[in-house]
Amino acid sequence: MEIEYSNIKVIGFDADDTLWVNETYFREAELEFAKLLSKYETVNKIDQELFKTEMKNLPLYGYGVKGFVLSMVEMAIELSNNTIDNSSINRILDIGKDMLNKPVELLAGVEDTLKTLFGDYRLILVTKGDLLDQERKLEKSGLTNYFHHIEVLSDKQEANYLKLLKHLDINPSEFLMIGNSLKSDVLPLVNIGAKAIHIPFHTTWAHEQVSKEKENNAYKTINSLLDLKEILK
Amino acid sequence: MEIEYSNIKVIGFDADDTLWVNETYFREAELEFAKLLSKYETVNKIDQELFKTEMKNLPLYGYGVKGFVLSMVEMAIELSNNTIDNSSINRILDIGKDMLNKPVELLAGVEDTLKTLFGDYRLILVTKGDLLDQERKLEKSGLTNYFHHIEVLSDKQEANYLKLLKHLDINPSEFLMIGNSLKSDVLPLVNIGAKAIHIPFHTTWAHEQVSKEKENNAYKTINSLLDLKEILK
Repeated sequence: MEIEYSNIKVIGFDADDTLWVNETYFREAELEFAKLLSKYETVNKIDQELFKTEMKNLPLYGYGVKGFVLSMVEMAIELSNNTIDNSSINRILDIGKDMLNKPVELLAGVEDTLKTLFGDYRLILVTKGDLLDQERKLEKSGLTNYFHHIEVLSDKQEANYLKLLKHLDINPSEFLMIGNSLKSDVLPLVNIGAKAIHIPFHTTWAHEQVSKEKENNAYKTINSLLDLKEILK
Repeated sequence: MEIEYSNIKVIGFDADDTLWVNETYFREAELEFAKLLSKYETVNKIDQELFKTEMKNLPLYGYGVKGFVLSMVEMAIELSNNTIDNSSINRILDIGKDMLNKPVELLAGVEDTLKTLFGDYRLILVTKGDLLDQERKLEKSGLTNYFHHIEVLSDKQEANYLKLLKHLDINPSEFLMIGNSLKSDVLPLVNIGAKAIHIPFHTTWAHEQVSKEKENNAYKTINSLLDLKEILK
């Protein structure tokens, strides 16, 4: 069955890894973290343990760089059996500061796409994570003026989207969400009667991965934002 | 000149130290931090240096517990001249987790006041800090249903308030903000043509303090939320 996009009035864009690079910086940070701890464990084991610690802390810390750094410090102490030196912990803090200070690198076709859609649709930005960090990235991106509304959510589950659409007075059937995460940007939307388009990013955080059987025909997948015009015209 | 409140249609409440205890937990955390570092420096010096580090990191970390913990770790390493032991750093991480897990302790008259005002006014919650932490505190408080809208801002300056009021379609002259911080909840409001009521909390973070000469007659100060009904009736 063909998915119908002609009644869409509002388009929501995810930010991290949809409009700009993000996950790449986390992967780089994890590599550097693993190097710091390489005398204690293998890279693979360090990756696994860090992910476990992040998942354990996620309900308390939420998404974003600051919680990630706190989990790295905790993990470094644990993996080193309380022997990690102060300068390595300082380096972990600096890895976090470097991440927060990174310039924003837009993905292909972002500005052109927003420019084309602006005027024909109400565009909103729907991201999750750390409020200040996301506001700063948007500011750095130079894209602020394309968006009628910016929403930073603490999580992207069905209930969060329902609340947002209600608050903005948007009918789910007239809403299209575009993002790189099946789990956060696509599946919750089709489940509440909205539309979604998936644009995979080359790197996906394990926490955002979904099993193959959850994939379905209720959404379209495209390779890049550049393919969006073709679908919506 | 008497301040006129009869045209108020929307009331905004600050959360931390206005509806529930917050600063007290930061002071307790700082005391424990100073004890951990007591072999390196005096309590007074540790307090001063921690505050300096927090201010240095504020543009990057923003408000909230996670940034506070990251600043404590950084400070502990610096003050100890790279000799702080791993278990003390672990204890600092735990201080942060304890803060995030604290139960919410409502201040006097909060629920009664909201119950009385609800229906006569649109009530909104306007807080700053960490998104997830603030949502969690609101949830724990049991007060969610009194509010028509919840807004977590990355900062509370005039521009943030103007944007919020515009977004919610609120005329500044019909908006009253109530909070414990002159700097964040009162002065920016009177400067944009809204009304404000100041309810001091017994403890104020140095960053929120304003000089005496900034106090003026454009807002009222009351001792407790219990005095609010008298003013608004």
